[in-house]
Amino acid sequence: MKGSGANPTAAMLVIGDEILSGRTRDSNAHYLAGRLAQAGIDLCEVRMIGDDAGAIGAAVRALAGRYSHVFTSGGIGPTHDDITADAIGAAFGARVAVREDARALLAARYERMGVEFNEARQRMARIPEGAALIDNPVSTAPGFSLGNVHVMAGVPEVFRAMLDGLLPRLAGGAAALSESLRVELPEGDIAGPLAALAARHAGVSIGSYPFFEGGTYGANIVVRGSDAQAVAAALADLHETFGALP
Amino acid sequence: MKGSGANPTAAMLVIGDEILSGRTRDSNAHYLAGRLAQAGIDLCEVRMIGDDAGAIGAAVRALAGRYSHVFTSGGIGPTHDDITADAIGAAFGARVAVREDARALLAARYERMGVEFNEARQRMARIPEGAALIDNPVSTAPGFSLGNVHVMAGVPEVFRAMLDGLLPRLAGGAAALSESLRVELPEGDIAGPLAALAARHAGVSIGSYPFFEGGTYGANIVVRGSDAQAVAAALADLHETFGALP
Repeated sequence: MKGSGANPTAAMLVIGDEILSGRTRDSNAHYLAGRLAQAGIDLCEVRMIGDDAGAIGAAVRALAGRYSHVFTSGGIGPTHDDITADAIGAAFGARVAVREDARALLAARYERMGVEFNEARQRMARIPEGAALIDNPVSTAPGFSLGNVHVMAGVPEVFRAMLDGLLPRLAGGAAALSESLRVELPEGDIAGPLAALAARHAGVSIGSYPFFEGGTYGANIVVRGSDAQAVAAALADLHETFGALP
Repeated sequence: MKGSGANPTAAMLVIGDEILSGRTRDSNAHYLAGRLAQAGIDLCEVRMIGDDAGAIGAAVRALAGRYSHVFTSGGIGPTHDDITADAIGAAFGARVAVREDARALLAARYERMGVEFNEARQRMARIPEGAALIDNPVSTAPGFSLGNVHVMAGVPEVFRAMLDGLLPRLAGGAAALSESLRVELPEGDIAGPLAALAARHAGVSIGSYPFFEGGTYGANIVVRGSDAQAVAAALADLHETFGALP
């Protein structure tokens, strides 16, 4: 999706070998996409890469230079394969060290739980210098924002909780509106009239998403835009064009 | 995931505004990841971008130069927003025109169905010069391979059928083996012994994927590699290290 021109833009970077090996199916990108659409931030690109410091650094630098915001998920736990904080610190020349406020949060949690605050757990307080912490109400270990890069956990419950804290701090634009019409005709019959309709409504974006369900070919036609009147006008035209068809 | 060094490498490019808007959750990347792991092709990167010719061209050029194979999904249907063939042709300087063998396949299908083979449907026979067709046993309209870029449909049933035809033509390497152990301990307790274990088994990759389920913290520890003996030795060590823990 191209940015609308008016709204802030964003990319997501999903980090983890388990995604690329097919072991785990990522759910954070789809969740983020929905939340950003509501917030008026245009998600323009998603990348998924492995637990490789060079690949993380190169991707995050490229995306941070191109978009208003970069959201990452994965690789901020206590184990040896959690290398995101170090890779992102290195990418931006920020020293990474145990930070006292993060350490104190974690120490208090493990004391409450009666669990040893060992060296591995202290790793989760290692934050690049100059970053702002992102609250983790689920399991305490914080994420962080370094410039326009927002680093969050991969575990979906934690990712979602961190995003809830982060999003209200980011300036959004006009929420994306979308309306759709299900048309039970093969896309090949829809295509001609739809192209003409799209030309009549240049202020919105119109997509056609084909399906094949139980022997029926059809497509969901989706109108997207941030101007409610323009979206409504295109939807009315859609109903007029396709609503009366068999 | 870094390439193993021995196996061919791959990237996937998922094309479609509907993914980035949060309307549709992509399933093709996860499916491809599993199939490539079996085939011994290392998936190193996934990108998801919108229906934007410039973005498609830039991404496919970057990925085709870096990996042995690039797999794309989406944007090859008959409607105005299906621009993948043209964008990829333009990216590699290949003329895109209706190709006779593809046109004949489609014409025969629509004649059998008693459906008009109109201008929109003829668009699906537009293929970049020099490409090899990828068979579509579900709905006929072919994909294509242009050099190391394999262009397939976004509809999951069609993507999977095309991949079935394509994969046997690509040279694979050693299938990725993986074994895992579920450890019901917080990752903070696992991390120290696991880092030592990973150092003892440098020939395999060891990942820790935390979960929090019904009040229980734990992690699935996954050993991956292409050498069966090395994977088995690391798994045995994992059982010895964590199997006896509460």
